[in-house]
Amino acid sequence: MERFEVNILGCGSALPTTRHFLSSQVVNFRDKLYMIDCGEGAQLQFRAMKLNFSHLNHIFISHLHGDHCFGLPGLISTLRLLGRTADLHIYAQPDAEKIFQPLLDYFCKDLDYKVLFHSFHPSKNELLFEDRSLKVSSIPLKHRVPSAGFLFEEKPKSAHIIREMIDFYKVPVSQINAIKNGADFVTPEGETVPHTLLTKPADPSKKYAYCSDTAYYERIIPIIEGADLLYHEATFCNEDLVRAKETYHSSAKQAAQIAQAAHVKKLVLGHFSARISNENILLEEAREVFPNTVLGNERMTIPV
Amino acid sequence: MERFEVNILGCGSALPTTRHFLSSQVVNFRDKLYMIDCGEGAQLQFRAMKLNFSHLNHIFISHLHGDHCFGLPGLISTLRLLGRTADLHIYAQPDAEKIFQPLLDYFCKDLDYKVLFHSFHPSKNELLFEDRSLKVSSIPLKHRVPSAGFLFEEKPKSAHIIREMIDFYKVPVSQINAIKNGADFVTPEGETVPHTLLTKPADPSKKYAYCSDTAYYERIIPIIEGADLLYHEATFCNEDLVRAKETYHSSAKQAAQIAQAAHVKKLVLGHFSARISNENILLEEAREVFPNTVLGNERMTIPV
Repeated sequence: MERFEVNILGCGSALPTTRHFLSSQVVNFRDKLYMIDCGEGAQLQFRAMKLNFSHLNHIFISHLHGDHCFGLPGLISTLRLLGRTADLHIYAQPDAEKIFQPLLDYFCKDLDYKVLFHSFHPSKNELLFEDRSLKVSSIPLKHRVPSAGFLFEEKPKSAHIIREMIDFYKVPVSQINAIKNGADFVTPEGETVPHTLLTKPADPSKKYAYCSDTAYYERIIPIIEGADLLYHEATFCNEDLVRAKETYHSSAKQAAQIAQAAHVKKLVLGHFSARISNENILLEEAREVFPNTVLGNERMTIPV
Repeated sequence: MERFEVNILGCGSALPTTRHFLSSQVVNFRDKLYMIDCGEGAQLQFRAMKLNFSHLNHIFISHLHGDHCFGLPGLISTLRLLGRTADLHIYAQPDAEKIFQPLLDYFCKDLDYKVLFHSFHPSKNELLFEDRSLKVSSIPLKHRVPSAGFLFEEKPKSAHIIREMIDFYKVPVSQINAIKNGADFVTPEGETVPHTLLTKPADPSKKYAYCSDTAYYERIIPIIEGADLLYHEATFCNEDLVRAKETYHSSAKQAAQIAQAAHVKKLVLGHFSARISNENILLEEAREVFPNTVLGNERMTIPV
């Protein structure tokens, strides 16, 4: 199985504690690294988790609150010191460039690489990035400021050939890729062998959804339908529901309701309030609704 | 003895490692806290060391390289979340306000306290702050960009009264403070009792000097003369002397030469290059010149 996993660098909320760093994750998709959010200290955790800085080319910022982006200038400086020359792409709202570019102009004048800001509008579900095997799109969220989650979707994979059948029909090597991708085989005698006879179905494509920061928001559900893994913020417990509403955050139970309604396979809770001293309460409240829930934690790696 | 100690939050150089955080210290002077430099993650270490955020009112920034100031926006945001209302004073070069104010305007619009930038010119040895018992002044340093160290000086303290002599001469309570501060006592009979008979000398006033970032720079010496504690950067070892010169940093030996020439009592090395895997080499090189040297380390508290 090709690698597709989520590394949690920080899963605290705005006020860091001795237990939690500020929001940041790194999605490792086939050894290419994609950062989601970059709170203060993200680069420290990146290093502590022995992730490879040179494999990081894309950073997605959910919203412009400091706890999700104050780590950017330090990370960008560090990449310079490490001798980076490859472009670094930052996907964020239009204000991000306006805010961070002057800082980079002052502190990072001598970069040997380009920092390219790609603006997007978090109110839309739009494609932000794609390559041969991965698509990343935005998920509109509901927060005090414009906020978006991110959906990482593996593109459909090719089928597995059945070696014995390929040998039996003497399929030339040159045709194998086409067959893996759905072409039938025609023998020199003119006989059509359907590709379903020659292959086993492809592994299912995986999906990872990151939803933070957000109030309970049903508009998320169809977008993340069937995701293999959902990270959903769970800043508060049931008892603090009024506060969750006021601050446009979610409770653990609400995160679980979204997970259940969207038929995701697994839910990871995060963005824990500094007020929560025992996160097991969050876990219990979520599991009552959606049993396959785990608590996020720093330096945790979760396969999608 | 009243408290005067240095807490090291970070003593790495520009590239953070798994061993070291970025530059930041907190001087605890009689339970008031003074931060020196504020690299990324300073607020995390501040909390980890169980320092009290509400006792912090003054921050001194040595120079405008990111590893010495990128922690400011996060710290300022955190103080807001903690309900701060007291002014926060930041002493830094004129550019600091220009650079950070737009960031604060965007991310910290709703502060219930004021952030006041006090500009100073690092090329001068000038008084930046004083109250009844403490003076903080700048120490011109030599770096790629304008840079200043900071000298924390306890003001002269009052003498200790000798209880038996006070009783013997029946000195009224109302005159004791004056005597502690050097006044002689005149008895009702007109006899003058010199204060030296009534008191033991005051405890000596202590001095702490912070010198980072800087090349070897003899102009520091007279300013820090006799300091009880000197923190001097020691980015490199002897072997990297060429690199130290190029980058306007010091070797451990050069830090020790400054300590020795200035007759300081104790030297703490810091600002270690990520290239140094064994800091004991730095320690040995420094101790050859100045034996009372220690290696700085995160979460270390050193009495002045």
